[in-house]
Amino acid sequence: MGRAHSNAFLQAGRFFDLPYQPVLKAVCSRNAERARSFADNWGYESVETDWRNLVHRKDVDLIDIASPNDTHAEIAIAAANAGKIVLCEKPLGRNAAEAQAMTAAVERAKVANMVWYNYRRVPAVMLLKQLLEEGRFGRIFHYRAKFLQDWTISPELPQGGEALWRLDAAVAGSGVTGDLLAHAIDTALWLNGPIAEVCAMTETFIQERRHNLTGQVQPVGIDDASAFLARFANGSLATFEATRYARGHKALYTLEINGEHASAAWDLHDLHRLQFFDHRDQGQLRGWRSIHITDGDHPYMKHWWVPGLQIGYEHTFIHQIADFLEALGQSKPAAPAFRDALATDLVTDAVLESAKMRQWRRV
Amino acid sequence: MGRAHSNAFLQAGRFFDLPYQPVLKAVCSRNAERARSFADNWGYESVETDWRNLVHRKDVDLIDIASPNDTHAEIAIAAANAGKIVLCEKPLGRNAAEAQAMTAAVERAKVANMVWYNYRRVPAVMLLKQLLEEGRFGRIFHYRAKFLQDWTISPELPQGGEALWRLDAAVAGSGVTGDLLAHAIDTALWLNGPIAEVCAMTETFIQERRHNLTGQVQPVGIDDASAFLARFANGSLATFEATRYARGHKALYTLEINGEHASAAWDLHDLHRLQFFDHRDQGQLRGWRSIHITDGDHPYMKHWWVPGLQIGYEHTFIHQIADFLEALGQSKPAAPAFRDALATDLVTDAVLESAKMRQWRRV
Amino acid sequence: MGRAHSNAFLQAGRFFDLPYQPVLKAVCSRNAERARSFADNWGYESVETDWRNLVHRKDVDLIDIASPNDTHAEIAIAAANAGKIVLCEKPLGRNAAEAQAMTAAVERAKVANMVWYNYRRVPAVMLLKQLLEEGRFGRIFHYRAKFLQDWTISPELPQGGEALWRLDAAVAGSGVTGDLLAHAIDTALWLNGPIAEVCAMTETFIQERRHNLTGQVQPVGIDDASAFLARFANGSLATFEATRYARGHKALYTLEINGEHASAAWDLHDLHRLQFFDHRDQGQLRGWRSIHITDGDHPYMKHWWVPGLQIGYEHTFIHQIADFLEALGQSKPAAPAFRDALATDLVTDAVLESAKMRQWRRV
Amino acid sequence: MGRAHSNAFLQAGRFFDLPYQPVLKAVCSRNAERARSFADNWGYESVETDWRNLVHRKDVDLIDIASPNDTHAEIAIAAANAGKIVLCEKPLGRNAAEAQAMTAAVERAKVANMVWYNYRRVPAVMLLKQLLEEGRFGRIFHYRAKFLQDWTISPELPQGGEALWRLDAAVAGSGVTGDLLAHAIDTALWLNGPIAEVCAMTETFIQERRHNLTGQVQPVGIDDASAFLARFANGSLATFEATRYARGHKALYTLEINGEHASAAWDLHDLHRLQFFDHRDQGQLRGWRSIHITDGDHPYMKHWWVPGLQIGYEHTFIHQIADFLEALGQSKPAAPAFRDALATDLVTDAVLESAKMRQWRRV
Repeated sequence: MGRAHSNAFLQAGRFFDLPYQPVLKAVCSRNAERARSFADNWGYESVETDWRNLVHRKDVDLIDIASPNDTHAEIAIAAANAGKIVLCEKPLGRNAAEAQAMTAAVERAKVANMVWYNYRRVPAVMLLKQLLEEGRFGRIFHYRAKFLQDWTISPELPQGGEALWRLDAAVAGSGVTGDLLAHAIDTALWLNGPIAEVCAMTETFIQERRHNLTGQVQPVGIDDASAFLARFANGSLATFEATRYARGHKALYTLEINGEHASAAWDLHDLHRLQFFDHRDQGQLRGWRSIHITDGDHPYMKHWWVPGLQIGYEHTFIHQIADFLEALGQSKPAAPAFRDALATDLVTDAVLESAKMRQWRRV
Repeated sequence: MGRAHSNAFLQAGRFFDLPYQPVLKAVCSRNAERARSFADNWGYESVETDWRNLVHRKDVDLIDIASPNDTHAEIAIAAANAGKIVLCEKPLGRNAAEAQAMTAAVERAKVANMVWYNYRRVPAVMLLKQLLEEGRFGRIFHYRAKFLQDWTISPELPQGGEALWRLDAAVAGSGVTGDLLAHAIDTALWLNGPIAEVCAMTETFIQERRHNLTGQVQPVGIDDASAFLARFANGSLATFEATRYARGHKALYTLEINGEHASAAWDLHDLHRLQFFDHRDQGQLRGWRSIHITDGDHPYMKHWWVPGLQIGYEHTFIHQIADFLEALGQSKPAAPAFRDALATDLVTDAVLESAKMRQWRRV
Repeated sequence: MGRAHSNAFLQAGRFFDLPYQPVLKAVCSRNAERARSFADNWGYESVETDWRNLVHRKDVDLIDIASPNDTHAEIAIAAANAGKIVLCEKPLGRNAAEAQAMTAAVERAKVANMVWYNYRRVPAVMLLKQLLEEGRFGRIFHYRAKFLQDWTISPELPQGGEALWRLDAAVAGSGVTGDLLAHAIDTALWLNGPIAEVCAMTETFIQERRHNLTGQVQPVGIDDASAFLARFANGSLATFEATRYARGHKALYTLEINGEHASAAWDLHDLHRLQFFDHRDQGQLRGWRSIHITDGDHPYMKHWWVPGLQIGYEHTFIHQIADFLEALGQSKPAAPAFRDALATDLVTDAVLESAKMRQWRRV
Repeated sequence: MGRAHSNAFLQAGRFFDLPYQPVLKAVCSRNAERARSFADNWGYESVETDWRNLVHRKDVDLIDIASPNDTHAEIAIAAANAGKIVLCEKPLGRNAAEAQAMTAAVERAKVANMVWYNYRRVPAVMLLKQLLEEGRFGRIFHYRAKFLQDWTISPELPQGGEALWRLDAAVAGSGVTGDLLAHAIDTALWLNGPIAEVCAMTETFIQERRHNLTGQVQPVGIDDASAFLARFANGSLATFEATRYARGHKALYTLEINGEHASAAWDLHDLHRLQFFDHRDQGQLRGWRSIHITDGDHPYMKHWWVPGLQIGYEHTFIHQIADFLEALGQSKPAAPAFRDALATDLVTDAVLESAKMRQWRRV
């Protein structure tokens, strides 16, 4: 994620007219060599190997946390206490308790803060948000989201350490629930409001794996798959599902919303398109419209190329930092703030608890 | 459904080489005029207005039940007791108790029997069944199915009577659970084996409607939407959902199965295509294949037209009766028999019970 | 084609309320055994082995020609002279001269006549026709059509005789030009008006093949591929292409029309969908609509099943005979009449001549 | 295009390990204010308002031409004569004579050179190139390409001056032929080899427009639409078409190639996917594969994000400059060089001449 963030800091000002221009003061990694190499590539002015030094540097205004989940809370709280602006990768905490403490810290310190739920800034998803706010859908009946991957199907894949920390429950907090479902839940809460209650199941298909660093075969602590039923506060029903065992899908985050007058659907594998159905179209001519989100009047797109030319994944981070800096210039909060991300952690906690207890849980 | 069945009886012999040729001896309806008109159109030799007469006619070998759900059990049991072959529209009973009695009747009478879960005979679905039986998918991790419609969203739509009996719980037994989910469950059990347990939620979005016949506003007794989590006996996880409130979808029955080596997906709105992903394809060239199921080596298709020319909905009934007559000629049972359909009713009962109790239920 | 026609004669009256009900008096084939078998299967009352007998039978009102192209003219003219209604498979003649004589014959005899350009009766194509007639597209700029197949790529495929007469120039008249392009041209003339001029190229990729009956290797006389540029009388530009060497396409007939205000596209591999783009939609929400042509207000569809349930290839023939009988009951002509099909033969003649002369040709 | 090029110069080194790192020494524009603003945004060290100064600056090694077509030849020749590396936007010249002179200049000066036909560097297109070179397609029968836009349909759109120079024949050289078809031809020559002969038609649908600067209504000199038939040297047939009057298409560049064993298709509106059909797949399971080109083993993709996360338009420029610098480090030429782009101009000249003469033209 360090690359995606660094790229966003560098690119935002080139394509957006912003009140601030990020200066890459320092990159921090426990591995000095890696930090140096990264700094050279991205133009960071200096290197740190202990984040404690970084959060107390006078020449640093903003701390951006892109390290594994088990470091989020400690760094974010220290940075907030040091009066720094804090940006944090998602999920905010490994659980809601951590997220609660982090949220309390930034709010107490009154520092600007934001969590990188970047998919809100896909132009198609932002357009959907606008359409919902315009009331085009009427009463909402259904929401459904999935996040399907297939990269852990092999039992030979080790767990833990470096690139594989997402398979280590102690570091990640959970498996697909905190990793993939968290994205789906953040978008859902933003688009469709609070979730009232959930009923979940989780599964660990491959129950033992060799640890990447120790070489020892150990029980797998994470959830490989997670699905839940939900009722939103607005009365709509939902199904959510995430897995790393859906052969053929690499990062297929899909969402669909069905309202009284209209429906819309989107997926990450064709992120530059929004599917939209409007029942108010003339009867014979009703159909799902595949809207190619590349026109100047689509969200964010006047900053990019001419109609028909698509953008991709990294742009969602550029949009997010552009929005953040724009809000900062106006002394306004930018969403999703820590508090918004805490709401997602409350849902993921309820999901994991529901799966464990085999019961419905209120959020 | 009477039209779809009658068409199937007439067409099967023209396109398939069958051991028996159905003769349309009589059509039965309480409304004599309607029965007469139907008989004229489809070439039935005679008309009955009381099914009790029909089931005792000596010149009739087979009773096909296409009437509302609340009549299935009584007619089927009487027909079986009279020694007739019995075909029945789905769902078999309004609940598993009825289905149990019906199954007992046909098995006691040793009469051939079948239930019109016609979507098994979509060529793409049959091909998927064959691929699964060949073991191409390896261990199965996920199954998911939806059946989405949007025809009851208007609160002005009345309930009950004639064409709207599907909205009357007393007649239909349930709402989308017995109507739409039943299809999805039948296919799932056939493709992926028994379901061990379910956890469901149902909703009635519009709680009062004017009755179509009496004009009185009454509580709605059916489920408008129904979704459930499931675990199959083979260890795979599943999500199922059905609704009549998904704007933009007319009869979108979709299913997907994810295995260790391959995945496949199909939907009723493009029923002549199977989506197939094979992880054993060469790495760079892996992709979802959109297979146009119109070749002579695809199931059933050698009986139809040349490659590229698609068939549609009604053909699934033709295939089913062709398979039934073929099996009858060999004195073999044809699936789904009443007992197979009873298995589906056991799942739908568990779904409705789970939703009511807000608990997981074993099937 | 005999199966598709026979099926249409039998099915039309079951789904449409028609002024006449076809009676299958006789089927004719030089092969008596095959004729008998066909008659048995489809319920023809009698068999003929010489079409000359058939066209003079007093109990026959209508002659339907589904034999190879080299027989069309002689039979049609004799049937017209005998005062019979004449239906003929496409293309009308092997060339425009034959088609001219055939048209003269039916017009002189004042007999009802029609050519089986069945794709006009795909509901999606008929809807497009209606949209064009309503003036929704404004000035037309572009038309493009392709008909792609891949069944003759193997050099081992023999030519001529029985099922392979389409590869024999003497019988077929031409290759893909008269077979596949003829369909594309008929639809184009109907939707977009007369073609003023064409410039074409043709190719025979495999220049020698073994003859199916004699076993001798002979030069191939047909065009394997044919493409042309065209200008319509309305000023729009067009490209047309047909081939039997497009790997991966079985019967992919596609068409697209671009107007000032709207565009539409359709293809035969998903014949139940119309793609439609309306520039008058609100800017941000413009997109190609995939219209699932299965609603009761779509052309022909109220006669079939409920929304969402698709029909297929054979239904185009049913629609055509239903329209024909309806028109006959009103003593009106039904399109495409022989004269309409002659217009297509005039274009295909110009295409073949243009390819040979390497020049633009006026039609 | 200045933005796309500048972005590429800045981004290439961040994502690719390159032998050279571009230094943005100067940007040149006749409008000093605009040049200054552009330099500030992109980090150019200095500004020039006369390209003649720029091409003689000692601190500049490479001249990148992104100005309107009528300036390409003069600047490129001067830069080559000054010993600079020359990169040039496409089309190389307004016609083949200009391109010939430019090619002669760079070859005489022995300077590295390249033309920005960026679509070769779409990962999906590069993969297709590799598949063709591996011989997977066998004999090629067909090639077809289209480039469809809809931005000039309004007669109110003025012509010429600034952003609208593409509508001014004196500046642009031609309309869609040099603008859009040139892209399609470059890719085609690269993938399928030389084009032997063409037969074209062009059209100017709106024949008079107000000039953007003078306000005067003047005849339109460019071609609004252009289509041609072609024969490649390898014996395959082709159709090409470009227009700015295809309602609903913004920048829909599509290409398809049909070979004996396989076919492939690609389009710019979903540039991250390759459609591939392999006839050697098992019969029942043949289908068009939609390959999501985001895996580490796809061309260029290991430099970007994880599987499933798509890139977009701007990345094609980054890939091109990365390839160029890589080749430069090895003292190898990078394609497409000026000579390659000259080949495209020879085809576009033949197309325009063919349309004018209404004859086939050899290239």
